[in-house]
Amino acid sequence: MEYPSKLLTEIVNEIAKLPGIGKRTALRLALHLLKQPIEQSEDLSQAVINFRKGVKYCEICHNISDKPVCDICSDSSRRHQLVCVVEDVRDVMAIESTGEYRGVYHVLGGLISPIDGIGPSDLTIDKLMKRIENQHIDEVILALSATVDGDTTNFYLYRKITEFESFPKISTIARGIGVGEELEYADEVTLVRSIINRIPFEKSISRHK
Amino acid sequence: MEYPSKLLTEIVNEIAKLPGIGKRTALRLALHLLKQPIEQSEDLSQAVINFRKGVKYCEICHNISDKPVCDICSDSSRRHQLVCVVEDVRDVMAIESTGEYRGVYHVLGGLISPIDGIGPSDLTIDKLMKRIENQHIDEVILALSATVDGDTTNFYLYRKITEFESFPKISTIARGIGVGEELEYADEVTLVRSIINRIPFEKSISRHK
Repeated sequence: MEYPSKLLTEIVNEIAKLPGIGKRTALRLALHLLKQPIEQSEDLSQAVINFRKGVKYCEICHNISDKPVCDICSDSSRRHQLVCVVEDVRDVMAIESTGEYRGVYHVLGGLISPIDGIGPSDLTIDKLMKRIENQHIDEVILALSATVDGDTTNFYLYRKITEFESFPKISTIARGIGVGEELEYADEVTLVRSIINRIPFEKSISRHK
Repeated sequence: MEYPSKLLTEIVNEIAKLPGIGKRTALRLALHLLKQPIEQSEDLSQAVINFRKGVKYCEICHNISDKPVCDICSDSSRRHQLVCVVEDVRDVMAIESTGEYRGVYHVLGGLISPIDGIGPSDLTIDKLMKRIENQHIDEVILALSATVDGDTTNFYLYRKITEFESFPKISTIARGIGVGEELEYADEVTLVRSIINRIPFEKSISRHK
């Protein structure tokens, strides 16, 4: 597709580099900006560069944070011996929004993905190992997505953690039929797992924090 | 939803102002930028502001153009007496990509939309009227979308053009069943229009440029 202007070509190409946005959508977004006050484009442009250049991470859990130590890691009322390992800030936000988890986190910043060229050294795995080595941790919960990359990362972490002479308990989040989900629509793998990993009925009605 | 950082909050809010992008997608896009080289964010940021501040329009047809008069308007081999009125640059690109239309365009820059507070003076309608007044034009093709706003704009333009003592022929693009589309899946309004506006069979096999 040929655009009638160089500036238009550039903005479309740059927006279309974002995942899930094609050239057609990029063009629609660019034309939308033209109809808005110039301040909106200035704010967008500034926000992008400010975020990318100024983003900071918590020294302990590596979640995105404006402070050297994030609010969760500096909250003394939380259980710092319970560490939930997640892929990124979205997972922290999702778990936090339940209001039920009282442990802390470790944000990997991605998953091991040989296809995308992401190895263990691109993630904060070394930092996690240092935390386990230097701090008393009872349990590590692996809460990564149930994908090939998630499984790869799970196994890698499991192997690394169990290399320590004494290592924390390692658990993963439960896979099963979602609450409110109908059995007949669940995929087979999930259904099988939910039967294999069945739990005593009494446990299903109590809630552990 | 609460974000753990001010910079993250800002980028998510700004990206989510774009049409069709929610806060969840905005967060995904922001986190994607973190995994890319910083140059990508710089280029995106620059492209947005360069486009919004530097965009120029053709003096004649008001399509986006780097030159004072665009390539189409300055092409002497085209029929300058045939003007196709469209909403924006996307429509010009769509028609141009057919390679069959040899007239010129007039880009309105939007549609009359009382709900969105867009009146005739927000569009390039005055400029179109000046073109019709000062230049010899045989025919104006109204090629606006078949929506409430499109119809409103069509009627407004029709009334304004027919106010001239001598005015060009005014036509609209044909509505009907798409080529290759199956009759049974067409909506009723389109189907009715395609029967009312039926054409002699011989015309359907020749192609007019």
